[in-house]
Amino acid sequence: MDNDAYSNLISRLREIGQIDSASALLDWDAETYMPKNGLAVRAEQLALLARLSHERMTDSAVGDLIARLDEPCDDEVVETNVREIKRHYTRATKIPTSLVERIARVSTVAKESWQKARENSHFETFKPHLAELVDLRCQVADAIGYATERYDALVDEFEPGITTAEITRLFSSLQAPLSEFVHAVSEAPSKPDPSILQRKFPIETQKLWCRQMAAEIGFNFDSGRIDVSTHPFCSGSAPSDVRLTTRYLEKFFNSATFGTLHEAGHGLYEQGLPEAHVFTPRGQAVSLGIHESQSRLWENFVGRSRPFWERYYPQCQLAFSDALTDVSLDDFYFAINAISPSLIRVEADEVTYNLHIIVRFEIERDLIGGKLAVGEIPEAWNEKMATLVGIRPENDADGCLQDIHWSMGGFGYFPTYALGNLYAAQFFARARKDIPNLMDFIGRGEFAPLLEWLRVKIHQHGQHYRASELVQRVSGRALSIEPFLDYVSDKFAPLYGIDD
Amino acid sequence: MDNDAYSNLISRLREIGQIDSASALLDWDAETYMPKNGLAVRAEQLALLARLSHERMTDSAVGDLIARLDEPCDDEVVETNVREIKRHYTRATKIPTSLVERIARVSTVAKESWQKARENSHFETFKPHLAELVDLRCQVADAIGYATERYDALVDEFEPGITTAEITRLFSSLQAPLSEFVHAVSEAPSKPDPSILQRKFPIETQKLWCRQMAAEIGFNFDSGRIDVSTHPFCSGSAPSDVRLTTRYLEKFFNSATFGTLHEAGHGLYEQGLPEAHVFTPRGQAVSLGIHESQSRLWENFVGRSRPFWERYYPQCQLAFSDALTDVSLDDFYFAINAISPSLIRVEADEVTYNLHIIVRFEIERDLIGGKLAVGEIPEAWNEKMATLVGIRPENDADGCLQDIHWSMGGFGYFPTYALGNLYAAQFFARARKDIPNLMDFIGRGEFAPLLEWLRVKIHQHGQHYRASELVQRVSGRALSIEPFLDYVSDKFAPLYGIDD
Repeated sequence: MDNDAYSNLISRLREIGQIDSASALLDWDAETYMPKNGLAVRAEQLALLARLSHERMTDSAVGDLIARLDEPCDDEVVETNVREIKRHYTRATKIPTSLVERIARVSTVAKESWQKARENSHFETFKPHLAELVDLRCQVADAIGYATERYDALVDEFEPGITTAEITRLFSSLQAPLSEFVHAVSEAPSKPDPSILQRKFPIETQKLWCRQMAAEIGFNFDSGRIDVSTHPFCSGSAPSDVRLTTRYLEKFFNSATFGTLHEAGHGLYEQGLPEAHVFTPRGQAVSLGIHESQSRLWENFVGRSRPFWERYYPQCQLAFSDALTDVSLDDFYFAINAISPSLIRVEADEVTYNLHIIVRFEIERDLIGGKLAVGEIPEAWNEKMATLVGIRPENDADGCLQDIHWSMGGFGYFPTYALGNLYAAQFFARARKDIPNLMDFIGRGEFAPLLEWLRVKIHQHGQHYRASELVQRVSGRALSIEPFLDYVSDKFAPLYGIDD
Repeated sequence: MDNDAYSNLISRLREIGQIDSASALLDWDAETYMPKNGLAVRAEQLALLARLSHERMTDSAVGDLIARLDEPCDDEVVETNVREIKRHYTRATKIPTSLVERIARVSTVAKESWQKARENSHFETFKPHLAELVDLRCQVADAIGYATERYDALVDEFEPGITTAEITRLFSSLQAPLSEFVHAVSEAPSKPDPSILQRKFPIETQKLWCRQMAAEIGFNFDSGRIDVSTHPFCSGSAPSDVRLTTRYLEKFFNSATFGTLHEAGHGLYEQGLPEAHVFTPRGQAVSLGIHESQSRLWENFVGRSRPFWERYYPQCQLAFSDALTDVSLDDFYFAINAISPSLIRVEADEVTYNLHIIVRFEIERDLIGGKLAVGEIPEAWNEKMATLVGIRPENDADGCLQDIHWSMGGFGYFPTYALGNLYAAQFFARARKDIPNLMDFIGRGEFAPLLEWLRVKIHQHGQHYRASELVQRVSGRALSIEPFLDYVSDKFAPLYGIDD
């Protein structure tokens, strides 16, 4: 191996990582503490840093170094880094700069038009901008190239290696059983009472409570923090500095508690990445889908489990005594696991959530594939919602205008949310085999066995394995819908009194 | 004028400003919210951004552009920007990069050794590192060049245009009357009772109170915020985003209240700089001394005045009723204006403060001038403290090891603190002439007349005028010690019952 070329390449990557992590902090600040008039200067700072990063990533010197390292190597760190840097470099250099700049400009306008369109529930306001973004993203896909479907080139940015065909196969087999299950739930004899979660939960108490929950599952506050933002997120500069945000609603218990567990799940992954490889692919997350599997695993498979609340409900009742004194563990557990068809993705339960994603995936796949026109989106959306979720939006604000993603030109992102749920189920099923008493540990508030398992099996590898390889290695089989469907029926059929 | 050259130069400056303001935000975060393990990555990010900024400032293309613009110009904005950019470029390019890097390396070690030395009150631990920094700073001064004294080249970085001779002249005439006044106070019949300020002031109440005080004097919270840090500071990305910090002590009223008024004074200057010229000299503060005049003016000339507390003491008493119910306005006003010789600069009152600065100035001037050896510092310090302030430190931790500045190689910075007091007195005396009812306005909580006066006379000019010109234009005379001495005797002689 050409050691000089490799160390030169890595020091370039570290520099790019320092710039990108500075941007991440500026972004975090913009969402948490920045005074409102700071926006214009912040936008300039971020644009400059994005340009400095992009210039460095597409520098032809990087291409030359990669060429000097383009031979088999028996050091897995080197092999991983060269492979992934090459992937990024190739993608970045294939897209003409003029196209990148055009997308940035159009997105700014499109985002504003989307906000206005959503406020007035008027799709036509957004339509021409969305059409332009679809066209530009098609040009991006064509520039990058693809084997079979144009959408492959876009989804590959977020979930490297997966194909449209593979997602279609998974989602279309998932759809019918989930829709049926949701229907069965709506006919079931037992019903939860979600109103108990809409009593008064003082925000100052929620802050202490959420911080404690994050600490309990293993989030390290010496290497991270929790703040407040309108849209919760997890942003990491490095494993040593991971920023979570959450949102506190006085009249809704779930928002902050499960939001915090979700973001802390992302945060545990970031904190578990190998620090020695910070700012290089060997030290970075595999994909958005794998990232989402970590958040979903802690939020739902752990945080909405019965043993978890057998352990923490007494504390929770004491903390929020005004709201919960008269609520039994059974009623509380049922309420936090309420399943019901709803219009808004971000408010959906863990079962119907995937159906919301399938609606979006099918639409954007067909848009990019040229099989659906932008003007046909509202009707396609409403039809699919009625068929899959069993509920039809009465206006576009509650329908196809609800999400920000498309207004930023983000096509290919949505599927990773549902893939995350599938990965999570498959990982968690395996963890229960590898750690026979896992649910007992959770019932005692002992999360170290599970966290250590995730560290060893997933976190520490960074991008060594692609998502599909990782799933195969961890669980012994390819990604499948069965673990998720098993989880759903094992958990919810008895809860709702459904004969399975 | 060569318009192309000018707009090219300005766009380069704006890029440097964006990088520097991103650094300022990363620094602010490091002092306020960063988790402790984030330090190593933060240091890397800041080092990279400092390098990117320095590379751009010293790019020979900047020199070429300046050369193309080096002719008289009747546009004051262009004239100011070209003059000041040239000054920065010239200073920056005269100092060899190897020397800059060496100072950065030595400072890191020196700062650690200073911390250890201060903890153990053991000057010898710090001595070799300090000696090296003095030597390196002498090399910097020699590289930059100077007319008469080597120290001129260093102080010029912080207070452009001032000379060692001028500071010596001002400080040596200030010293005797101030020392005499402090002595007279210590013999005076009236004594304040500062213990009333050391009762219990609940921190959550202080936070609300300080925020209100900052808002009252005109700090715009849409373009700034207040947070908590160990060492209070004001850091500005731009007039639209100014970050203040303060420190709350439950058992000491002054710390947060006067600290906030001080930092808000800096903040009002930053918010008042012309936004159209952000990131260029025409939109930046004149000097550290002028900056300090703004903080001191609001902290002391306004915030420790009798009319201010006639207006706000009733509110203050209500807010902190447990501590202040039995304290009269007279006793409170006397307590916040207590003068007494003390060892620690940052805890000193507004009169003795200047004597602390004179001690430091004389020592560093003589160090850089080669008239004092590093080993002689402790004795020189203790002697000067005894003579000037009237109190002799019993150890070096409370003496020459108390300040961080020298450990960072910051020689020439200290005088700007006392210059700030002199500028403030001269500006405030003039403001009272220009606004005859100024103290009545303050007594009614109406600060707009004073703030507007500062905006028009000082803030809006950015670096158009050098400090000496600005003082001349605003007050009609050169900087002098009389306004400060008049202020001191007018305010404190009656308070302490001293015959003037």
